Amino acid sequence: VLGVGDDCALLAPSADEHWALSTDTLTEGVHFLPTVDPAALGHKALAVNLSDLAACGASPRCYLLALALPRIDEGWLGAFATGLNALAELHDCVLVGGDTTRSPVGATITITVLGTVPKGQALLRSGARPGDQLWLSGTVGDAALGLALQQGRAQAAPEQARTCIERLERPTPRVALGRALRTVATSAIDVSDGVLGDLGHIVAQSQVGAEVEWARLPRSPALQQQPEGVQQRWTLHGGDDYELLFTAAPERREEVESAARRGGVQVSRIGTITSTGRLVVLDADRRSLDTGTSAYEHFR
Amino acid sequence: VLGVGDDCALLAPSADEHWALSTDTLTEGVHFLPTVDPAALGHKALAVNLSDLAACGASPRCYLLALALPRIDEGWLGAFATGLNALAELHDCVLVGGDTTRSPVGATITITVLGTVPKGQALLRSGARPGDQLWLSGTVGDAALGLALQQGRAQAAPEQARTCIERLERPTPRVALGRALRTVATSAIDVSDGVLGDLGHIVAQSQVGAEVEWARLPRSPALQQQPEGVQQRWTLHGGDDYELLFTAAPERREEVESAARRGGVQVSRIGTITSTGRLVVLDADRRSLDTGTSAYEHFR
Repeated sequence: VLGVGDDCALLAPSADEHWALSTDTLTEGVHFLPTVDPAALGHKALAVNLSDLAACGASPRCYLLALALPRIDEGWLGAFATGLNALAELHDCVLVGGDTTRSPVGATITITVLGTVPKGQALLRSGARPGDQLWLSGTVGDAALGLALQQGRAQAAPEQARTCIERLERPTPRVALGRALRTVATSAIDVSDGVLGDLGHIVAQSQVGAEVEWARLPRSPALQQQPEGVQQRWTLHGGDDYELLFTAAPERREEVESAARRGGVQVSRIGTITSTGRLVVLDADRRSLDTGTSAYEHFR
Repeated sequence: VLGVGDDCALLAPSADEHWALSTDTLTEGVHFLPTVDPAALGHKALAVNLSDLAACGASPRCYLLALALPRIDEGWLGAFATGLNALAELHDCVLVGGDTTRSPVGATITITVLGTVPKGQALLRSGARPGDQLWLSGTVGDAALGLALQQGRAQAAPEQARTCIERLERPTPRVALGRALRTVATSAIDVSDGVLGDLGHIVAQSQVGAEVEWARLPRSPALQQQPEGVQQRWTLHGGDDYELLFTAAPERREEVESAARRGGVQVSRIGTITSTGRLVVLDADRRSLDTGTSAYEHFR
């Protein structure tokens, strides 16, 4: 039904159901450091895949795990499995297969997830229409701040720092929200590469434009304490947040808010889909912000 | 329907069909060297996964590709894609999704394949029964000899050497044979870890024993030129051959041979399934050979 280019592939095994498939890899030294808590890593490896299912509105069913590890460390593996299993059980997602191999250098973790969605209800990147409202769940930029805190490039109060690092290491896939948006949203994507980068995919695949209102972008208290420049960069371009960015017709506003309540997460209206073919961020006076297109290109 | 522990997981999306899912990783420095022909690598990365589908009797449908690469080298990627696509097209197996990430060190390639099989006809490791005949497709030990030739640990005539290295680098998944064996074989596995190691999985999961007749093990002309000791080791324990090892009731012999013709590969009867719970290799006088159980354990 749908191949490469969206969050998931869609297959049609039966008359009334579609199956959504997605795969994501975490690589040591790129997506995590060797010193990471293995339980958090197990959580994140599955979370980033469940987030792709969420972005399609699919219900998780099962997953396959391919592990390439430098050595067999029982303690490490046990903690990794604990973090992985806890999230899998929370979403009733069953491990059905896998492959464990040796890696001469760093660890590589690849998970493939399979979910189901009623036929015709999958959320695609290509469904946004001019006039749709643009929505975002939760807050963005926290994972980028968490990474900066870990690396000593930023400072925050201890409780706020813990929250941001938790968001980086144990992201929450918005599975329930994605499911609740099935018949409400016109398009959706998960924010893994930054709001502007991922909105760019919706704009390109829906052949529309978008206006984002900077003042409406949801930022956590921790992020609001940061200098204006980094705040803007992390909010617009920070990756790893795994919130859902989606569009819906203006008259569906109450249904969006109801879906957010069922999804257990706040949503914010951050802008509008246009027919201009361009993606702009507007300040309070509706002037276009310079949003650093080179960073935007980099993250795509 | 079936989870971890066989060549594939089996899912039941509709009343009459099962879906088979499998994932396999190739890691640089373990499964291939950085100097490998990228087209051959693309072929092999898919072939080892198709071989898992073959071992279940499933027809390939689609696959997902997760690539972690040290750098983007257009020439390398183009050649990799050419080798991959050629095999995918041969089996009508469509790329439906993927993920490309950076790896700070070596390349890691993970493919997840999905195939279909009529309900109740999947070949499992657990179906062998005492009295069944034990069969093997093609010849085994050639890939191990190919590796030894590449590493200068063995010698062979140029034409034979080319054949063995080709078997190592571009294995042929026995997809058509697996499909033809659906209603004929009682169990099957693909030989990726060596005949004895993989037969050990059938013996364990079927709760049976097995007698292998050494003289019946199919060896290529190239392998038959090698010293007796290495010949035995590579035949029994050599990995990477991707032939099918399977069992069938004695009265199904003609159907097995007909399936082999449809599968385009020779099959050899190499032994018998017993009820002893033990796995033995017998010489021409029916004496048990010392088959190097430590190597056998190592490969499991």
